[in-house]
Amino acid sequence: MSERPKPRVTVIGLGRMGIPIASAFLDAGYPTTVWNRTAAKADALIAQGASRAATATEAVAASQLVIVPLLDHHTVREALASAAPALRGRTLVNLANSTPDHARELAAWAEEHGADYLDGAMMALPETVATPEGFFLYSGSQPAFTAYRRELEVMAPAHYFGTDPGAAEVHDLALLGAGYAALTGFLHAAALLDSMGTTPEVFAPLAARWLHGMAEFLPELAREAGSATYRDGVSTVDLNRAAVDSLIQLSRASGIATDVHEPLKALLDSRSSDGHGQDSFSSVFELLRSSPGSHEG
Amino acid sequence: MSERPKPRVTVIGLGRMGIPIASAFLDAGYPTTVWNRTAAKADALIAQGASRAATATEAVAASQLVIVPLLDHHTVREALASAAPALRGRTLVNLANSTPDHARELAAWAEEHGADYLDGAMMALPETVATPEGFFLYSGSQPAFTAYRRELEVMAPAHYFGTDPGAAEVHDLALLGAGYAALTGFLHAAALLDSMGTTPEVFAPLAARWLHGMAEFLPELAREAGSATYRDGVSTVDLNRAAVDSLIQLSRASGIATDVHEPLKALLDSRSSDGHGQDSFSSVFELLRSSPGSHEG
Ligand SMILES: NC(=O)c1ccc[n+]([C@@H]2O[C@H](COP(=O)([O-])OP(=O)(O)OC[C@H]3O[C@@H](n4cnc5c(N)ncnc54)[C@H](OP(=O)(O)O)[C@@H]3O)[C@@H](O)[C@H]2O)c1
Ligand SMILES: NC(=O)c1ccc[n+]([C@@H]2O[C@H](COP(=O)([O-])OP(=O)(O)OC[C@H]3O[C@@H](n4cnc5c(N)ncnc54)[C@H](OP(=O)(O)O)[C@@H]3O)[C@@H](O)[C@H]2O)c1
Repeated sequence: MSERPKPRVTVIGLGRMGIPIASAFLDAGYPTTVWNRTAAKADALIAQGASRAATATEAVAASQLVIVPLLDHHTVREALASAAPALRGRTLVNLANSTPDHARELAAWAEEHGADYLDGAMMALPETVATPEGFFLYSGSQPAFTAYRRELEVMAPAHYFGTDPGAAEVHDLALLGAGYAALTGFLHAAALLDSMGTTPEVFAPLAARWLHGMAEFLPELAREAGSATYRDGVSTVDLNRAAVDSLIQLSRASGIATDVHEPLKALLDSRSSDGHGQDSFSSVFELLRSSPGSHEG
Repeated sequence: MSERPKPRVTVIGLGRMGIPIASAFLDAGYPTTVWNRTAAKADALIAQGASRAATATEAVAASQLVIVPLLDHHTVREALASAAPALRGRTLVNLANSTPDHARELAAWAEEHGADYLDGAMMALPETVATPEGFFLYSGSQPAFTAYRRELEVMAPAHYFGTDPGAAEVHDLALLGAGYAALTGFLHAAALLDSMGTTPEVFAPLAARWLHGMAEFLPELAREAGSATYRDGVSTVDLNRAAVDSLIQLSRASGIATDVHEPLKALLDSRSSDGHGQDSFSSVFELLRSSPGSHEG
């Protein structure tokens, strides 16, 4: 396979994420220019072969592809303000955590200055950059994603979610939400068992095993929800409703908060009383997607 | 290492779980007696070397260790009623799904009839019996667990949670609850993204990856919660509160139910207004464990 030569890459922002990102490009053989407000944080990368830019403007000017793992929206605006004239013809990849609206705002600003814009959300830790464990979400310019996919995949497997620059942040929030729900469920279970003398530390490995099992189960749930076909006949609304009822009763009897599972109970109750008790558990998806506001009470 | 000879094992109930269980004992070289209400379901096991009992009483009489993966509490009572006199000196391992109180009731009944009792909860599927993926929870007679641990581990890694016969079912419910929370969080996230054009099927692999990551994170959460030491300084209450707020706003704006994350928001708000905004996320454990009733509003 013939490959185009590796373009120069700029990394602006050498914090916990920026350093392993710049390092990954150097490891992959890319000529790499770096800039950081606190210049000393670039020293190890310079020793590894990076070029140091004296200013953000110089950093933007150095490469067609400008990757920005700064702290947040505000610091991206601040760091790039003076570099705006250098942006023309560049592709700006904003990896700072942001809101969907801030991502859209920055995309408009970049476009004004003649730059292609990709918003990215890093589902990774510093130590999982450039490993198969991390993954990054992108949205914004489709041509930019296509042109630079190879470079983006140096940092992590890259997933693209359309031209709305806010979409990556929406997907980020959705994933965070799924994670929060799981962690809250774990802490609730740990509190319940703590009241019975099983410590969180003893419980955690079992819970982790169980959660890995749940993760394996998601594609099946997604097939049911995606096709609105809920006739599995094994794990029904009514069966799981009984278990959730038992759990809430047990929580109450143990003096533990019950509200973590009340929303699910309300969803299952509602499905059951609408005549869907023999549908599979995943059919609560129908209520989640169609009902604004609260299912409580 | 010198090993005691393999005792005869009885399996009563050859449903989806009972068949792989009996089969695992045969594979492991145990003389195995089986009984099932519908006798034909034993045929393949007999061909594999099992002994067929004509009645439940005969099955109980055949072995010191009697394992019962029947449907539920009611069917265990019904199937074993006539076999009660044969129970003396036996160890009864009830693997039927049950409530904590039913487990305690059956333990008392077994004791009346001179049997040791272990209650078990099978965190496994038929295809993960006798694989490292499944695990079983036990409570009840400590001497029975110690004496038969080797046999129990033929079915799955075995975890013991004390002499209260209801404890295994409590741990089962707690794990189910953690799983429910995770699945509900996934379905909520899928509903949110569905409204943006990303199907549940496309989202599921990413969510699974993310959930595997959360599972890896549980031991750290458990260390913080177990020691009530919440000073990690990275993933604080206030940081996550802002993300949960964004998520709820986004859900509302997208016409998606918001109540899935309302309990967590209330917990984080409460910690923050109590001056714990810089504690780590896991510190909501303090509210979960101490507060009966609801955190809403
Ligand atoms: N750390 C993680 O585990 C992780 C995981 C996934 C996503 N993220 C996201 O990744 C982004 C970066 O996180 P991080 O952990 O790498 O942050 P960090 O270690 O705190 O680094 C922050 C970076 O932003 C720079 N910065 C801050 N304020 C600035 C300003 N006013 N002008 C110019 N530069 C400024 C810092 O420069 P100085 O060196 O001069 O301070 C540093 O390069 C965040 O949006 C974060 O939410 C982080
Ligand atoms: N399947 C799973 O994935 C799974 C996973 C974890 C835990 N569990 C739990 O494991 C237990 C067994 O589940 P399973 O899936 O193996 O159930 P199953 O396939 O429905 O088998 C039920 C068993 O109970 C017997 N039975 C039912 N009513 C009876 C009665 N009145 N008298 C005597 N025997 C009776 C059946 O005998 P016949 O053959 O004569 O009908 C059969 O042996 C349940 O408590 C379940 O909750 C199941």
